[in-house]
Amino acid sequence: MTASVAAGAIRPAVQEWMASVQERVEQALTRHLPSAEAIPARLHQAMRYACLNGGKRVRPLLAFATGEICGAPAEKLEIVSCALEMIHAYSLVHDDLPCMDNDVLRRGRPTCHVEYGEATALLVGDALQTQAFELLARENLGAPAVQLEMLRCLARASGSLGMAGGQAIDLDAVGRTLELPELELMHALKTGALIRAAVTLGALCGEPLPDAAVKALDRFAKRAGLLFQVVNDILDCTASTATLGKTAGKDSAADKPTYVGLMGLEPAREFAGQLREQALASLETFGDRAHRLVELTDFIARRQF
Amino acid sequence: MTASVAAGAIRPAVQEWMASVQERVEQALTRHLPSAEAIPARLHQAMRYACLNGGKRVRPLLAFATGEICGAPAEKLEIVSCALEMIHAYSLVHDDLPCMDNDVLRRGRPTCHVEYGEATALLVGDALQTQAFELLARENLGAPAVQLEMLRCLARASGSLGMAGGQAIDLDAVGRTLELPELELMHALKTGALIRAAVTLGALCGEPLPDAAVKALDRFAKRAGLLFQVVNDILDCTASTATLGKTAGKDSAADKPTYVGLMGLEPAREFAGQLREQALASLETFGDRAHRLVELTDFIARRQF
Repeated sequence: MTASVAAGAIRPAVQEWMASVQERVEQALTRHLPSAEAIPARLHQAMRYACLNGGKRVRPLLAFATGEICGAPAEKLEIVSCALEMIHAYSLVHDDLPCMDNDVLRRGRPTCHVEYGEATALLVGDALQTQAFELLARENLGAPAVQLEMLRCLARASGSLGMAGGQAIDLDAVGRTLELPELELMHALKTGALIRAAVTLGALCGEPLPDAAVKALDRFAKRAGLLFQVVNDILDCTASTATLGKTAGKDSAADKPTYVGLMGLEPAREFAGQLREQALASLETFGDRAHRLVELTDFIARRQF
Repeated sequence: MTASVAAGAIRPAVQEWMASVQERVEQALTRHLPSAEAIPARLHQAMRYACLNGGKRVRPLLAFATGEICGAPAEKLEIVSCALEMIHAYSLVHDDLPCMDNDVLRRGRPTCHVEYGEATALLVGDALQTQAFELLARENLGAPAVQLEMLRCLARASGSLGMAGGQAIDLDAVGRTLELPELELMHALKTGALIRAAVTLGALCGEPLPDAAVKALDRFAKRAGLLFQVVNDILDCTASTATLGKTAGKDSAADKPTYVGLMGLEPAREFAGQLREQALASLETFGDRAHRLVELTDFIARRQF
C-alpha cells in the first residue's frame, strides 16, 4: 500500500478526509475561542483573526490520523486539536512581530500586528497560549490523570525546551553558519516538538497503546516533523509568495540557516525523500490502521504550499 | 486583634514570616526554572533574570497565608507560588516592552528587554508562561482532579478574561477618561484576577474547605486585590523611583487612568482604608487561623514600595 500511495498524487478521498477534519477544527475553534463580543472585544476579535479561516491544520490532521489507530472519539480529538492550533497560532503571531521576523503577510492576509497593532498582537499571542492550556484543563477528556499527562505534553512541547527554545536558537543563529546537527536541533524544537505533541495527544485521546506502539509513533512523529521542515525550506526557496500565502524566500533573505542553504536544493530533496521513507517505516507495525498517517506523510512530502 | 494590627506598624515577627516565605519561594524558583546552562542558555539566563532576586512575592505570600487556614503543606504551596510568580514575571516582561509601556527599570534593575534585547524578552515571557503551566501539571499536588482545578484556576486568571484581558482594556484606555466602574473592571482583571488565583490556589493546596469559607476567601481576595492596586496608584504619584525600584509617576505621565487621577489623592487614601476594612471583615469567620492574611492585608495597605 505504501508504495502505491507514494507513487500517486493525493487521492480525492484523502483530500476529502483532510477537508472534513479541517472543517471540524474550524468549527471547534469558532466555539472554543472567546466570543468577539466579549469584553475586551478588540482582543477577542484579534484572537479569532489569528486562529480562524486559515492554516493547513497539519497538527490537528496528525492528531486525528493518530486517533484512528487507537479508537479516539472525535470530540476529544477536536479539543486537543484546538489547543494545538492555539499554541501554533500564538507562535506565528509572536514570530511575525517586528522584533522577531517582522513579517507582514500570513495565510494570505496582513499579519496580526499589521491589522491590530503591535501591543494587541503581543497580547493575542499571550492570551492564545493561556487559552490552549485552559481548554485542555477545562474540558472533559477522560481520566484526570490522562488529562494531566496531556497538559504536561503540550507544555513541554511549547516551552523553553521545546518550541520557544527553538525560536531562541533560531534568533542566535541569524548570520552564523550552523552545522547540520545544530540546524536539526533547532527544528526539532521549533516545529518538531509541537508535531510530536500532536501525535502523542492524538494517541492519549484513545485507548491506551502498548509501550512499543507509543515509541513507534514517536519515531514516526520525529521524522515527519523534520520532513515538514525540510519541505518548508525547499518551498521557501522554490514557491511564490502567492502560493505560500506568506512571504517567500524570507528565510534565505534574512540570512537564516536552512536545509537548502546548507545542503543545496537537490540534496535537500533527497533528504526529504529519506525522511519520508523512515517515517513510513515506523508506521509498518500498525498495518492498515495507520493509513491516514501514511496519507498525511505523503501530503507533507508533496505539498506545494 | 484586627484593630491592634491596624494601629501598629508591621511587627518584626510578621516581617520575619514574610522574609521566610520570600526566601523559600526564591529557592524554589531557583530549582524550578530551567538551568542557566541548559540550551538555549541565553533564553534560560534571561528567564532567571526576570524571575529571581526581586519582587515582593505578594502572590506567594497570599497563597502561604491562605494555606495556614486549611493546613496546606509548604511543599505544595511552593509549587503554586512558583507558578504564580512565573505568570506574574512573564506579564511584567511583556508589559515593559517598547510596544507596551516601554519601561527601562524594574525591581531596581534594567528591564529584561534592555538587558537581553526585545526578541529574547518576548520569548522569555512566552516561555515563563508555559513553564508555569508545565510546573502545575508536572509536580505531585495530590488528587489529579484537584490539580486540574488548579490549572483551570491559573489559566482563567491569566487569559483574555483575566490578566491579559485587563492589559487589553488598559491599552484601549490610554488617553481616554474612564469612569470608576471601568477602572475597577480593568484592575479586577489586570492585577485582581491573579491575586484571587493566589488565594484560591493556596486553599486548593490544603484540606477541602466548606463552600461558605471558599466564598469568604474570594470576597477577601477581591477586596485585597483592589486595595493592592489603589495603593499602587497612590505610590505611583507619591513615592520616588529609587524607593519603588521602578519608574515612578509613569502611569500619570502616560495619561493612564488611575484612582488618584479620578478621585484625587485623599479620597483614594480613604477608599484604600475602606477596602482594607472590607477585606478584613471577610476574614472574621476564620478567627485566628486567618492571622497571616490579616497581617498581609496591613502590609498591602501600608507598603511604601
